[in-house]
Amino acid sequence: MATLTEKIIAAHLVDGEMVPGNEIGLKIDQTLTQDSTGTMAYLELEAMDPPRVRTERSVAYIDHNMLQSGPENFDDHLFIQSAAADYGIWLSKAGNGICHQVHLENFGIPGKTLIGSDSHTPTGGGIGMIAIGAGGVDVAAAMAGRPYYITMPEVIEVRLTGRLSAGVAAKDIILEVLRRESVKGGVNKVYEYTGDGVQTLTVPERATITNMGAELGATTSIFPSDDLTRTYLASFGREDDWQALAADPDAQYAKTIEINLNDLRPLLACPHSPDAVVPVADKAGLKVNQVAIGSCTNSSYVDLAKVAAVLKGNRVNPNVSLVISPGSRQILKRLADDGLLSIFIEAGARILECGCGPCIGMGQAPNTDGVSLRSFNRNFYARSGTASADVYLASPETCAMTAIHGVVTDPYGEEKFQGIQHPEAFQIDHNLFIPPSEEAIGQTDLVKGPNIKDCPVGQPVPETLEGQVATHLEDNITTDHIAPSNAKLLPFRSNVPYLSNFCLTPADPDFPEKCKAMTGAAPVVVAGENYGQGSSREHAALCPLYLGVRAVIAKSFARIHKANLINNGILPLTFADPADYDLVKEGAKLTFKNLPAQIKTGQVDVEVEGLDRPLSLKIDLGSRQEDLLLAGGLLATIKAEQEK
Amino acid sequence: MATLTEKIIAAHLVDGEMVPGNEIGLKIDQTLTQDSTGTMAYLELEAMDPPRVRTERSVAYIDHNMLQSGPENFDDHLFIQSAAADYGIWLSKAGNGICHQVHLENFGIPGKTLIGSDSHTPTGGGIGMIAIGAGGVDVAAAMAGRPYYITMPEVIEVRLTGRLSAGVAAKDIILEVLRRESVKGGVNKVYEYTGDGVQTLTVPERATITNMGAELGATTSIFPSDDLTRTYLASFGREDDWQALAADPDAQYAKTIEINLNDLRPLLACPHSPDAVVPVADKAGLKVNQVAIGSCTNSSYVDLAKVAAVLKGNRVNPNVSLVISPGSRQILKRLADDGLLSIFIEAGARILECGCGPCIGMGQAPNTDGVSLRSFNRNFYARSGTASADVYLASPETCAMTAIHGVVTDPYGEEKFQGIQHPEAFQIDHNLFIPPSEEAIGQTDLVKGPNIKDCPVGQPVPETLEGQVATHLEDNITTDHIAPSNAKLLPFRSNVPYLSNFCLTPADPDFPEKCKAMTGAAPVVVAGENYGQGSSREHAALCPLYLGVRAVIAKSFARIHKANLINNGILPLTFADPADYDLVKEGAKLTFKNLPAQIKTGQVDVEVEGLDRPLSLKIDLGSRQEDLLLAGGLLATIKAEQEK
Repeated sequence: MATLTEKIIAAHLVDGEMVPGNEIGLKIDQTLTQDSTGTMAYLELEAMDPPRVRTERSVAYIDHNMLQSGPENFDDHLFIQSAAADYGIWLSKAGNGICHQVHLENFGIPGKTLIGSDSHTPTGGGIGMIAIGAGGVDVAAAMAGRPYYITMPEVIEVRLTGRLSAGVAAKDIILEVLRRESVKGGVNKVYEYTGDGVQTLTVPERATITNMGAELGATTSIFPSDDLTRTYLASFGREDDWQALAADPDAQYAKTIEINLNDLRPLLACPHSPDAVVPVADKAGLKVNQVAIGSCTNSSYVDLAKVAAVLKGNRVNPNVSLVISPGSRQILKRLADDGLLSIFIEAGARILECGCGPCIGMGQAPNTDGVSLRSFNRNFYARSGTASADVYLASPETCAMTAIHGVVTDPYGEEKFQGIQHPEAFQIDHNLFIPPSEEAIGQTDLVKGPNIKDCPVGQPVPETLEGQVATHLEDNITTDHIAPSNAKLLPFRSNVPYLSNFCLTPADPDFPEKCKAMTGAAPVVVAGENYGQGSSREHAALCPLYLGVRAVIAKSFARIHKANLINNGILPLTFADPADYDLVKEGAKLTFKNLPAQIKTGQVDVEVEGLDRPLSLKIDLGSRQEDLLLAGGLLATIKAEQEK
Repeated sequence: MATLTEKIIAAHLVDGEMVPGNEIGLKIDQTLTQDSTGTMAYLELEAMDPPRVRTERSVAYIDHNMLQSGPENFDDHLFIQSAAADYGIWLSKAGNGICHQVHLENFGIPGKTLIGSDSHTPTGGGIGMIAIGAGGVDVAAAMAGRPYYITMPEVIEVRLTGRLSAGVAAKDIILEVLRRESVKGGVNKVYEYTGDGVQTLTVPERATITNMGAELGATTSIFPSDDLTRTYLASFGREDDWQALAADPDAQYAKTIEINLNDLRPLLACPHSPDAVVPVADKAGLKVNQVAIGSCTNSSYVDLAKVAAVLKGNRVNPNVSLVISPGSRQILKRLADDGLLSIFIEAGARILECGCGPCIGMGQAPNTDGVSLRSFNRNFYARSGTASADVYLASPETCAMTAIHGVVTDPYGEEKFQGIQHPEAFQIDHNLFIPPSEEAIGQTDLVKGPNIKDCPVGQPVPETLEGQVATHLEDNITTDHIAPSNAKLLPFRSNVPYLSNFCLTPADPDFPEKCKAMTGAAPVVVAGENYGQGSSREHAALCPLYLGVRAVIAKSFARIHKANLINNGILPLTFADPADYDLVKEGAKLTFKNLPAQIKTGQVDVEVEGLDRPLSLKIDLGSRQEDLLLAGGLLATIKAEQEK
């Protein structure tokens, strides 16, 4: 009576008990990285220095920083190429496509575990993998053969019945789930899809759903592996990788969400959140300046063939810029061979490279105050590169219809999409892959351009720590405040020293300078509720670490960021009495005594200069986390083990 | 006994005498702009405010700023779209291709005059046009119906005999001309191609030669219009635009250059100048990191079909990143339809958008210290986006062979290219054009995003001018030094105040600050030979103008840049004795007295603080230019006329 999630977790469990809320360790079969997080992951792997990766398959993708406006990007690509060669990792070169799509096509295997240093790694759930987004150091540790730790999730059933109507898409299913569950509804949950409706969805459609399931804040999402999964793998010459997988018929779920596909209508996420979902019909007629189709969510062959069905014989509206970025080179080639690329070009679409492109703000920023409709997964404020733009998210069908009409157009009932099928077989080549080679493993010099700087490593917790409050922040400080990410800073993800100059500056412009000026005391951050909400980027811990920060005292922490702080040896402390938040102003000097012993009690008293009583703080750690933190974090722990 | 150049000039002469060295005014039939110079040209047109353009055909192309990392680019595109509608100009939208290629295919007509705010406008000479690169304000004035003034050029004959050997390309012909004539050899000259060898070259091959003839500093280059021209125009459905045109058999030329095509071998321009030409064989075996194919020089169908011939059945070397940017949407569609695009993709090439792309530093910057081989026309220092990179220029054939071998590879003798022909007919559509419409002309509001700032206007020449040398520069300062052009700065071409912060900084990092700090004296630039070589960008005059520069004293000037200085009221002075260059160091204070009267004599003596004799300078102006300069430039003149 197990869910599919439980079955795969059970088969990979190496530590802990499968009780929701417990920390569990999983054996990881596969890893993936992309280039904006990958450089740091491989610097961390270098610090761990295994002779070669211990996973069944690890793949390094280049798909993010492909505009290459300066040498930094190409330098990063070459560093990743050298690390891949040295450690026995597959390299997917720039132009080969988006990591999640390419991985699904070439490497994903039902029943396997995959972690990736990209939040949309759950795409792999479309073929029945447990696929989870993780921080770079966690991916590095998994490559080095260590288990990956998560909180054992609750399993939520999404039971699909019926069949999608003409013009309604898989994208509309996940938009409906987001509408119901919200962007924070999925924390510590896995969404497992079941029901008759599953059999009406091809793997690329399922992958759209598991991909965008990341927006729920979920650990991951998963579909069963069935005959359609076999057909999909067979189309890429990988039928041998298939096995049937499903939940037991009597599996118990923490909750069940019912969706009757017959009842669904085309949906749209409004600015600036993927859960601000309304029917397309409600926005019909809204003038758009740009339509962008592609991304790891919606750039499969079938997605783009549906776009071609709309564009054929039509012309992109003169007041619209339509950009299409195919998801993989394999898809692009097939589109070319089938004449569909020619249809795009004739209609007046702009064909971008296979890669993440505009979805991550790498190019194609809308006009000032513009309206952009996109087949992507995120429409966060300013992510497009234009803070004043309104970005909407919808299916490729809605996007394509809108592109030719120039206003938001509802594809409901449109018959053009009927009968479009995933090809039976793709022509397979590995011309933009570089597979591992025995001659290169352990024999390759790492190539580090001038922008690639070592990864900072945490220090063991000292007996006594002198600290000083460097900044005093409000509630809901996000990872975008802590480690700002935009087209100008993304090329510097492999340069923590440089990136640190921008650490927390959106909240406190002088923070880096204040940390650097501090002598004889470690900078301490004081903050309100929900410190570190947002993405999983480990740079939000690495930049403070580089600036010497040893502790963050907050009213509360976001879950993933707290784990990142621990992974980097920074103390995540909370106020025993939240009212004490006002007592520790910027500049206050703090003395932590008997610190390791206090941490083990979960209670940390600290002397505050000028305060007549100790400040009472708490620290909430599992025993594994306690060990990590005391040793200075995950990388410090592994380095210390190596020196034994 | 007239040259072809003389015939076309005579047919368009509206002012002056056709004596080499004389200033002459030409009626302009066609204009083109691109988006990085176009915003300024349309701001200038707006200042002139004609009811509609007076040319036979004016076209506004979007081909430069297509990465769109922020809202600036899209805002510029929409401004240009609105100006095109309001003044009756064709718009070629982003994705339609590179202006020169698209213009040749769709609008160029033998015997017509064309000026364009892009230095590679001479591409049109490939079909027998007089096509000249000009500053934006000149193009605006031509659109407003004014004549375009040039110095009547000397006509140089390039007599081609024989036939290119297998593996030798049109690119090698122009590289040979550059090797012999140098980047400043063509000032105030037109290169007219004659001889039996002409009939062995198709229009796209001729256009490669006239395009890159811009690197000679020439006014333009021209081929006769013959049966091959007719065939070319017919392939785009424009046979009616054809007429036969050639020099008289007994035409007199100022000089004749003989090139026997049989003797040519594949050539290569070495860093950092298009005239640093050596045989490919001399560099064979040099390891390359990147190969880039495309640009207005080499992205015709035949060029790319030859690349496909090399790539077919082969794989891009794993250590090379090969990027291909097709020249026009028409070509891209045909490549897709003929299966050639599929060959590129299969081999592992990265397919970029139709546009200028890496040629103008919009993306695809090489790695640090990298080697990049490109089929482009310019390899100026740092233009690629990576200052430490070595950029080489060669034919598409050399580029393609190199891409698969990973080292510079000589295509000489390679038989694969034989028999590749320009298609008889292209499928024609105008889906990415917006033609002028009577309803829109004079009725369209100009759409100006927040980054679009007014164009600075020059001041009349004063009686006495106090100046101070702000910088003392060497020979061959390019427009890339004066108004740096890269992915970070190109989006700001419509914002001269911002762009001015980078004026001349590649040559003198403190130049803008020094200008701003100067009080009581106008900044003066001192430079060596060939100041202002390179592109037509008038920003190389507008940015100094904005910084208060009133004079440039150089050993010599590049043609377009000198005209741009005059158009903006900045004095282009030369040393009577080049040896005096060393006498005017940075910081020297200069006093120009009776300046208007001195300018009229062509001789300007200036007092230099601490020098016991006046510095003797020259200024070489036609009478029209003299009037313009004294009035503060072209826009100042037109504005003054309007106020009468």
